[in-house]
Amino acid sequence: MKNILIIGCGLLGSSLLRRISKKKIAKRIFVYEKSKSNISKINKLKLPGKIIKSLKTGVVNSDLIIFCTPMSEYRELILKINNFILPKTLITDIGSSKIETSKVIKKFLKKGIHWTQSHPITGSEVSGPEHGKDNIFENKWCIIIKDKNTTKSNLNKLTKFWKKIGSNVVTMSSEKHDRIFSITSHLPHLIAYNLVKSAQDFEKNQKYNLIKYSAGGLRDFSRIAASNEIMWRDIFFNNKNNISKAIDLFIKNLNEFKKDINSRNNKSILKKLIKTKKVRSKIIKLKQDIDKPDFGRN
Amino acid sequence: MKNILIIGCGLLGSSLLRRISKKKIAKRIFVYEKSKSNISKINKLKLPGKIIKSLKTGVVNSDLIIFCTPMSEYRELILKINNFILPKTLITDIGSSKIETSKVIKKFLKKGIHWTQSHPITGSEVSGPEHGKDNIFENKWCIIIKDKNTTKSNLNKLTKFWKKIGSNVVTMSSEKHDRIFSITSHLPHLIAYNLVKSAQDFEKNQKYNLIKYSAGGLRDFSRIAASNEIMWRDIFFNNKNNISKAIDLFIKNLNEFKKDINSRNNKSILKKLIKTKKVRSKIIKLKQDIDKPDFGRN
Repeated sequence: MKNILIIGCGLLGSSLLRRISKKKIAKRIFVYEKSKSNISKINKLKLPGKIIKSLKTGVVNSDLIIFCTPMSEYRELILKINNFILPKTLITDIGSSKIETSKVIKKFLKKGIHWTQSHPITGSEVSGPEHGKDNIFENKWCIIIKDKNTTKSNLNKLTKFWKKIGSNVVTMSSEKHDRIFSITSHLPHLIAYNLVKSAQDFEKNQKYNLIKYSAGGLRDFSRIAASNEIMWRDIFFNNKNNISKAIDLFIKNLNEFKKDINSRNNKSILKKLIKTKKVRSKIIKLKQDIDKPDFGRN
Repeated sequence: MKNILIIGCGLLGSSLLRRISKKKIAKRIFVYEKSKSNISKINKLKLPGKIIKSLKTGVVNSDLIIFCTPMSEYRELILKINNFILPKTLITDIGSSKIETSKVIKKFLKKGIHWTQSHPITGSEVSGPEHGKDNIFENKWCIIIKDKNTTKSNLNKLTKFWKKIGSNVVTMSSEKHDRIFSITSHLPHLIAYNLVKSAQDFEKNQKYNLIKYSAGGLRDFSRIAASNEIMWRDIFFNNKNNISKAIDLFIKNLNEFKKDINSRNNKSILKKLIKTKKVRSKIIKLKQDIDKPDFGRN
């Protein structure tokens, strides 16, 4: 890569910026950010790269463009860059769901321009360039979407890029991607939001001050439920078919748990609790979480 | 306190043992533990206190007895200690639900013997004496149950004890306790178990290997879903009425979320996501969790 343009410089955009600069992956890095508050943070933090006011400067001078905005902003940005984007430029994004955005890309992006989607599996409950870190992608999975229009050359370019960033690359179709992450990421977030919402409703109805007793479990969910609302609204809307199915499976299982509890079905409940326990050690073995009890918090 | 008997020396029992010894809260500490594997761990760890083989020795010589076993073992133990317990001895326990155990105590404990229940809000997904720590109760809430039979003198004794341990003491009725913790602790655990179970079902049906992509959210739930199955079965069974109501509220809210997602109700969903976010900062302000993003994992 010679030059890279990052569009949207929040938590992940700024983390990419830091990493690309640190590892000297590009000759020049352009940053396009529409939020004035984020721009002033970036300046204050003295982050590398050149903030550009006109998209055109970045687009015509870059070999790789990375969309790091909420997914609901892709369409408008595509319509803008269509006016000056060159066929040699490769576009990617880091959005968390893929089927819907691939439809937007297909429908609106100028013909002959290549966009191969990426999804680095990382993030945090905090947002904004001040929370970005250069090691946030290190040893994390990065999914590259391989659909029927993906060229081998672009796949290779992008794989090389993410490997330089420090990610472990794996390719899959957008359909498979959206199904897998509806369960491992989208449903957990929705459930966390829903649990905190239920606690708030309960607190209001009962007039109990209960948040102060959240150390018994609720606090873990509150972290995930503090995630960026625009990003998560976009994910929920974009992957609604898979998420709906995941909700149905979840409610079916929860009703079975309720039945087991109310009938004191010892055998059935112990079987479930013992089986779910095994996932934790699998996750730790796969290095998807730290192995310290309680996330090493105490 | 002169002498204390700890019945059940797993994670919390052994943490109490370590703390009582470190802070010199008792002259002598007796430990009664039925699991041979735990006894051999306790010996290997050279934990303080005297392991007793006969319950009688500990019971007749102690001013305070603390039940740290799963709640399903209380009944059998009560029937045993009834034979030699003296009226001067105060009994407490650390069980996570209170209404059902108070019924067992009332029904089976010899008349004239005082049992005032406690619930320190602490714990971990790991079990056993090897995971105990002397600071696990420090600055954590400890609920003492005040019902119509609770004497002021026992309340004072127990408050003094838990304050020496390092906990912040609060008193409430067993009814209020079980309602609050059905939401802040029991439902979150059930939901975590249920989410992991749903992921396992999905993995089986789809034949996808998806646990390796759990860093996007699922991993947090897997920690809670790795908690001790006997302890949690007991809690679910003992607090089934409140938990059933909590499940109903949760499912009602989840179906509303589903409706919002499927109808792309932007206003309604953003309102919820923004509101739930506020709980996190409240929890951090109340010092119920650490303030580092991602629990400081990275």
